[in-house]
Amino acid sequence: MRHRLASKKAVVLLSGGLDSATTLFLAKEKKYDVTCLIFDYGQKHRREIISAKLIAKKAKCDFKLIKLKMPAIASSLLDKKIKIPEAHFSGRIPSTYVPARNLIFLSIAASFAESIGVDSIFIGANAIDFSGYPDCRAQFFTSLNKTIQVGTRAGVEGKGIKILTPLIKKSKKQIVKLGLKLGVPFELTWSCYKGAKIPCGICESCVLRQKGFIENYLIDPALSS
Amino acid sequence: MRHRLASKKAVVLLSGGLDSATTLFLAKEKKYDVTCLIFDYGQKHRREIISAKLIAKKAKCDFKLIKLKMPAIASSLLDKKIKIPEAHFSGRIPSTYVPARNLIFLSIAASFAESIGVDSIFIGANAIDFSGYPDCRAQFFTSLNKTIQVGTRAGVEGKGIKILTPLIKKSKKQIVKLGLKLGVPFELTWSCYKGAKIPCGICESCVLRQKGFIENYLIDPALSS
Repeated sequence: MRHRLASKKAVVLLSGGLDSATTLFLAKEKKYDVTCLIFDYGQKHRREIISAKLIAKKAKCDFKLIKLKMPAIASSLLDKKIKIPEAHFSGRIPSTYVPARNLIFLSIAASFAESIGVDSIFIGANAIDFSGYPDCRAQFFTSLNKTIQVGTRAGVEGKGIKILTPLIKKSKKQIVKLGLKLGVPFELTWSCYKGAKIPCGICESCVLRQKGFIENYLIDPALSS
Repeated sequence: MRHRLASKKAVVLLSGGLDSATTLFLAKEKKYDVTCLIFDYGQKHRREIISAKLIAKKAKCDFKLIKLKMPAIASSLLDKKIKIPEAHFSGRIPSTYVPARNLIFLSIAASFAESIGVDSIFIGANAIDFSGYPDCRAQFFTSLNKTIQVGTRAGVEGKGIKILTPLIKKSKKQIVKLGLKLGVPFELTWSCYKGAKIPCGICESCVLRQKGFIENYLIDPALSS
């Protein structure tokens, strides 16, 4: 039984932030043999790629770096002419939104998974303490799973490929708590959109991250390391 | 009215084959202002990219060449170690199937369309005289349209982005007939998977193409040019 569990294979999308790192360690705890996909897509915070590689190594996982030239850069996360905004949580989708990013990443992940015979793809998306990105919500993943089912050989002739979102309903507080339990090296993770030497503390990603630590009465280890 | 029609914008996926060329000329006839997306994804028949560029120029359209390194090459269309098979139409998906190809292409097209404010994406997929690729069937596009609706800002806050498949129910005979009516420069199109100097005539793509011309009592102009 143990051997069968150990032979499960998964692809994990790893950005280098705390959500994806927690997801990776969760997949490892569930005995998946994991290959991480790390995307270099022109993000200002390329600093996260270094974190992602370190986290993959810490988890003793293979990783594959995918270099991707986004077809257009209509996002403050990509375009140097647009400033990363301060957190506002106005209910409107902020300028850091990257058009169809998770759709592109997961399409590539599905292609990779199908090619190497893997049927599970993990992504650390969550839609409680988040920026309102439409491609982080449950209804997006439900629909994409159906699309992959009807649009791939694995779905039509085999048992299919499934995108798994174990954090989707978790708050940042719960994610940090889970990560602590799983031994996630939070000191290696990177969340700040600005990607300078130290986190800015005021972008939406920084604010959400701090919420997770503060609500657990903790100091973010990335700030003290 | 004419002016309003002229301001409609679309993205057309242009491979350089007869289906995508016919789709491009159909979009032009419908007065769309078109940007073509041409993908260089490691296909053996890179020859088609030259055709695609010539066709875009002939149609007086802008084009954008997207270079894409596929995450794995589990396809005879990409892997030099696997031979392109002869046409067999066995009902099984042939080795020329590229895992999640249309999903990747259309995800990138959706990102591009959303970034530049375009709401229509044309693809020349058809599922009558075809190789049984799951991502060429109507149910795939229906599902992907829903996924794009729930997964993009355009879908959530705007009027959305729609993938249009005007050839989906057409036979090759009908596509060639339509292309002739629209003035498609068939002599510039390229279909053969092998991508040598002249079409092999025996791969599935060649055989389907010839079916289209023969059923219209025509000689393929690409053979005589």
